[in-house]
Amino acid sequence: MAELSRLSFNQMTAGKATLAEVVNACERHGIEWIGPWRHSVSDDPTAASKLIRNAGLKVSSLCRGGMFPATTKAERQRRIEDNLRAIDEAAALETSLLVLVNGPAPDRDLDTARQMVLDGIGAIVDHAAASGVRLGIEPLHPMFAADRSVVVTTAQARAMAEQFHIENVGLVLDVYHIWWDPQIYHEIAKTGERIFAFHVSDWIVPAPDFLMGRGMMGDGVIEIRRLREAVEQAGYQGPIEVEIFNETLWAQPTDTILGHVTESFQNFV
Amino acid sequence: MAELSRLSFNQMTAGKATLAEVVNACERHGIEWIGPWRHSVSDDPTAASKLIRNAGLKVSSLCRGGMFPATTKAERQRRIEDNLRAIDEAAALETSLLVLVNGPAPDRDLDTARQMVLDGIGAIVDHAAASGVRLGIEPLHPMFAADRSVVVTTAQARAMAEQFHIENVGLVLDVYHIWWDPQIYHEIAKTGERIFAFHVSDWIVPAPDFLMGRGMMGDGVIEIRRLREAVEQAGYQGPIEVEIFNETLWAQPTDTILGHVTESFQNFV
Repeated sequence: MAELSRLSFNQMTAGKATLAEVVNACERHGIEWIGPWRHSVSDDPTAASKLIRNAGLKVSSLCRGGMFPATTKAERQRRIEDNLRAIDEAAALETSLLVLVNGPAPDRDLDTARQMVLDGIGAIVDHAAASGVRLGIEPLHPMFAADRSVVVTTAQARAMAEQFHIENVGLVLDVYHIWWDPQIYHEIAKTGERIFAFHVSDWIVPAPDFLMGRGMMGDGVIEIRRLREAVEQAGYQGPIEVEIFNETLWAQPTDTILGHVTESFQNFV
Repeated sequence: MAELSRLSFNQMTAGKATLAEVVNACERHGIEWIGPWRHSVSDDPTAASKLIRNAGLKVSSLCRGGMFPATTKAERQRRIEDNLRAIDEAAALETSLLVLVNGPAPDRDLDTARQMVLDGIGAIVDHAAASGVRLGIEPLHPMFAADRSVVVTTAQARAMAEQFHIENVGLVLDVYHIWWDPQIYHEIAKTGERIFAFHVSDWIVPAPDFLMGRGMMGDGVIEIRRLREAVEQAGYQGPIEVEIFNETLWAQPTDTILGHVTESFQNFV
């Protein structure tokens, strides 16, 4: 069983609550980690950081940078600048990790888009390193290849990360995105110290909605505990973020959501 | 451009029409190949074969066998027997190919389910070989890992096929299922003569529905022509099946569907 002290509550698991509401609820439920999103932080990162620290919480990661591929050079540059700001926000939050969701191809050309991701990371990695922020490439499930991420497998994300220093660029592994992969245990072992984060949720059958229908741990078919043990075997001992996008869950009171999350975490992670 | 003579019309592309209606429409539209489904064939394979031959059509493949994983040995045996019947039906249709969609895990245990697929193929391959029918393992898109197929990548399907003789077991590559794969061109080249079939459709953005929302070639983001050229480079010169599950398409008259398919095939495959 994973220690409850490792549970990190990703803000979007209570998608309709404000950051302050989530922070307060985490404090009430004895949760020690939180994973905020930029839309709640960007306006005033210092205030967000203070809010979180005052509640005694640590920040496991900031979601999210990335989205590098774009048709024009000017637009790609604009996105790089936005990622530089994301790094500053992560530093203000005193988190060591910025999650990168890397974006779809602007047209049919996957190869070029994948190169744009590498170029984008290359353009921000020095600023990240100087800011004490690591970059975590998150491979998304291949069903998001057309609209969210051209990075879709652990092997691919690892090969990208390996273009950079192990202290600066690694992987964010979310069971929802990687569970189907026939090579996943082999890949987790090979990724080793490059595993910068581990996220949990579940895959419900039938899937109510692929984006908004993630399940609570234990409600679906993912071998969550086996995956958790594999990332630990590979060397990861950090926080475990619970990130669940689910409209039905969001309709519940924030305290109900956190109660459900801590219970499922203890039973199924 | 692919020769129109290579177009095979998968019966489910006109999902609401009977096999006879599809056969007659193919004849009117100068289509030379058809891909029937078992539900239209099993009752009387000889009659179905005669219907198709009388229209001058050839059968590119029979959809579908597989679905091997199950909880009990008795149920797995029942499915093997059903696959043996599917082989007989394929032989009656004078097609050289039975498509295998291999089924989900009956529980969370993917490794065991994947072994059940291999065991299932092993249990039917001799009968297939003796019947002049090849078995085509179709890797499905990973979004179907929980409810349709534990075989989800080309590399995985190839490794399974390589457990058997190249004349008996190979792969069915459908662009909808494989386009996202960062290794796909490498994998196509390695699969080589084990490519037994090539299916086309498109991935629309945003996806209206993952099962029932496949697009007509050219309406989505898949690099169809590049994939077609890659499978040809690898040695495949057989029919190209158009297999599109789409409720909006199905609502149209059969002749409209076939007209749309032949036009899109000529423009985008």
